[in-house]
Amino acid sequence: MSEFDLIRQYFTRPPDANARIGLGIGDDCALLRAAAGCDLAISTDMLVEGRHFFAGAEPEALGHKCLAINLSDLAAMGAAPVAFTLALALPAAEPDWLAAFSRGLLALADASGCALIGGDTTRGPLTISITVFGDVPPTLALRRDAARPGDEIWVSGTLGDARLALGACLNETTLDAGQFNDASTRLHRPTPRLALGMALRGIARAAIDISDGFAGDLEHILERSGCGASVDVDALPLGPVLRSQARALQRSCTLAGGDDYELCFTAAPDRHDAVLAAAHASATPVACVGIIDALPGLRLHDATRQPYFLTQHSFDHFKTP
Amino acid sequence: MSEFDLIRQYFTRPPDANARIGLGIGDDCALLRAAAGCDLAISTDMLVEGRHFFAGAEPEALGHKCLAINLSDLAAMGAAPVAFTLALALPAAEPDWLAAFSRGLLALADASGCALIGGDTTRGPLTISITVFGDVPPTLALRRDAARPGDEIWVSGTLGDARLALGACLNETTLDAGQFNDASTRLHRPTPRLALGMALRGIARAAIDISDGFAGDLEHILERSGCGASVDVDALPLGPVLRSQARALQRSCTLAGGDDYELCFTAAPDRHDAVLAAAHASATPVACVGIIDALPGLRLHDATRQPYFLTQHSFDHFKTP
Repeated sequence: MSEFDLIRQYFTRPPDANARIGLGIGDDCALLRAAAGCDLAISTDMLVEGRHFFAGAEPEALGHKCLAINLSDLAAMGAAPVAFTLALALPAAEPDWLAAFSRGLLALADASGCALIGGDTTRGPLTISITVFGDVPPTLALRRDAARPGDEIWVSGTLGDARLALGACLNETTLDAGQFNDASTRLHRPTPRLALGMALRGIARAAIDISDGFAGDLEHILERSGCGASVDVDALPLGPVLRSQARALQRSCTLAGGDDYELCFTAAPDRHDAVLAAAHASATPVACVGIIDALPGLRLHDATRQPYFLTQHSFDHFKTP
Repeated sequence: MSEFDLIRQYFTRPPDANARIGLGIGDDCALLRAAAGCDLAISTDMLVEGRHFFAGAEPEALGHKCLAINLSDLAAMGAAPVAFTLALALPAAEPDWLAAFSRGLLALADASGCALIGGDTTRGPLTISITVFGDVPPTLALRRDAARPGDEIWVSGTLGDARLALGACLNETTLDAGQFNDASTRLHRPTPRLALGMALRGIARAAIDISDGFAGDLEHILERSGCGASVDVDALPLGPVLRSQARALQRSCTLAGGDDYELCFTAAPDRHDAVLAAAHASATPVACVGIIDALPGLRLHDATRQPYFLTQHSFDHFKTP
């Protein structure tokens, strides 16, 4: 099978009536038309076998996840998905693998209104790089640098079950089959919070998606906004499987877990009810977990206001120990 | 060194006054403003060590080349460069390597007016994926499907020296030091034909960049335009080093070489002088090498009108022999 046959067979879609796409797969470039009044929000991720996912990972879930984590970046800007490109290095062109991978990828693409408009395939160690494009009115984009002292800090959904499933895969933790199945779904099939991100336009100030652990990701907001925060670790919403685990494991999975793909965002306290209404409108639970303040740094405490000190850090690919 | 330090140190640029970039590196997404009357031309490539470049390749040239081949796709659409994202998997964070790689990459980015607006770095087998963005008025984009019978077929610059240098690296061919140096420059530091691509707006009909070999790339135009072509292989412009080589090697390097990053384009015969004027204005030599016709397929002949049969094919990553 040639590279061109491969692209045609697994990644070509029937041409749709999407007026935004002037030209899709098959030319030197795709052509994307701008939406009036919107900037194009652009994000890129690269996933490497053995690093971001286990060797032999189930390809349909992998196809879903590699697009989902990019869509999560759009959600964190309040952007609406439009299109994406896919660069794919494969050790071999295996039809079964490609069929399952493209099925998972394109099912989420269809469900999100995000069209595959171009890409590149090559032989190499399994590596997936997606660049995603979304629309957002520039004045309404949820940026990391927009938090202000006094803002409430919010988290969507629940945290920690993805890290718990990873721990079970690594034999750090034991889960029963039902627990493992539930937690694994969070790890392998994350849900980008697109509807919430768009509903928070004009309501939230700063936002980030939680991909490397809540504490580390919130610190990116604090650093770029030039402020600090006080967070109640007992207010962090626990995943349903994590709820039955020991307190120490709950803390490490929620604060420094990673792979949650929930949104962490801030909003002025007088927008508290508007945040709740946006959460309701987007059918996404949210929890208020702390307050932005002027003093730099992240201060954690528990429900009794006792300070809590984080020993684990969020994931960093090049961190020198 | 953490992932964030790494990005900051080697890939952060002083903020410029580019009004197109609403938000650059450092948030969940970059924000790109649309240019009035233009579509955004988008192209993605992925380069894998040991596949697209030799292990241990000189990093400054590699930084240049990985952006150049993407800019070449913009050139082939007649698009003007605006911005790009970089996804980079590295076995280790080596400061010397990163300094040289980013120097080569960003020198070409600056020279092309193409700003780095986002990316991702991770540990993994050395893999580079760039997505590039350019502006082009949609009615003037040079598409692969626009060739018409009667069009003249043109090639920019010269072909084959890059493939000749690769052959010398693989011990297929012997070159003296001066020849090897000249040919290697074509292989390692290709020049995207951006000025020519833009000058051909409204003059050329179809275009493609020659990355996998002239014959195979022209066939993409033929296939998508639903027509055929007749090409004089003796009219193909030879690279200066290739000129001193045997005829058979000249043929295989020009027709099926790859890595040329020249433009192959078609234009109506009454635009012949306009093509020459565009070439002059962009200081890019061009040669007329054949004619598009209605009969499907690519027919090659030599200067004496004797048919020439191609035995080698263009490069395909997944071709089954």
